Amino acid sequence: MKLEEKQIKANYEYQGKVINVRCDDAMIANGTIVKREVVEHPGGVGIALEDEDGKYFMVRQFRYGQMEVMLEFPAGKREKGEDKFITAQREIVEETGYEGYDWKYLGYIAPTPAYDEEKIFMYYAKKGKYVGQHFDDDENIALCKYSIDELVDMIMKQEITDAKTVAMTFMVKEMKNNESKY
Amino acid sequence: MKLEEKQIKANYEYQGKVINVRCDDAMIANGTIVKREVVEHPGGVGIALEDEDGKYFMVRQFRYGQMEVMLEFPAGKREKGEDKFITAQREIVEETGYEGYDWKYLGYIAPTPAYDEEKIFMYYAKKGKYVGQHFDDDENIALCKYSIDELVDMIMKQEITDAKTVAMTFMVKEMKNNESKY
Repeated sequence: MKLEEKQIKANYEYQGKVINVRCDDAMIANGTIVKREVVEHPGGVGIALEDEDGKYFMVRQFRYGQMEVMLEFPAGKREKGEDKFITAQREIVEETGYEGYDWKYLGYIAPTPAYDEEKIFMYYAKKGKYVGQHFDDDENIALCKYSIDELVDMIMKQEITDAKTVAMTFMVKEMKNNESKY
Repeated sequence: MKLEEKQIKANYEYQGKVINVRCDDAMIANGTIVKREVVEHPGGVGIALEDEDGKYFMVRQFRYGQMEVMLEFPAGKREKGEDKFITAQREIVEETGYEGYDWKYLGYIAPTPAYDEEKIFMYYAKKGKYVGQHFDDDENIALCKYSIDELVDMIMKQEITDAKTVAMTFMVKEMKNNESKY
């Protein structure tokens, strides 16, 4: 079965600060032209930073899209054209004050692939040198730390609902349990 | 630390078929007024449908936001005002042809909470009666089946990158391993 779709014409509907929105003309597999809405986003990173006691740095922050305070792994948006590993190294210092070392790339997730270009690149690192936090002006963040088993339990109880945090928690756990394999 | 933000004024920038986009005036914790972009979306469901051999129905489909064919659990968008369980029961028949039974609600994830209202409600069910597939006109889907361990392996190898599929795979596995707990 042929599944591919092709962009015929890009139509910009909104060009904003974090996102742009297009409503493209697209050709689906049977040759029909349909409308496809797309959110353009530069992508982001999430970082699971482990301390010497096996606890992970987490941030509590208000998320306007969900209108609530959420518990998440430290994360941030990629600057346009920035290498994702540079973003990760910058964001972990900004949000926790610590550098990372022994970095490992876990892969990426597509949070909502039907209509959003965003990819979230996920990293694991060990806690390195303290160099001090640095927040963006409109960023209010509270730091805390949890073990992987505590995070799994909070996910299953719906105290954590952020998609990248769910994915990263289980992928870090799987990586640790199968270090020879992944 | 006060983290909450308040909507001061909703400004619609785009009203589309699947999504609307606002660029709100919002008040952050320190009283400053800032701009916050929000994608409005009715939310969706994902369903992990298990057959009698412990295999799960999966769909391969082209995702325009990511411009590639992706492997995912069956899923669909909620009609406006529709109860999420009704959406799940409808979508599983549409995409696999089978009804579900022994339904279990796993919880929801917020795929990209900074700027998107979307919630994805996740269900587990056992394969019931065959009643026939029914696709939307512009939907091209190929069905296949995998075990949970095969899905975990594909996630760790980045053959699966869809956020809901990553979350659901690990949450179903965790639920099965701790049936007394969750």
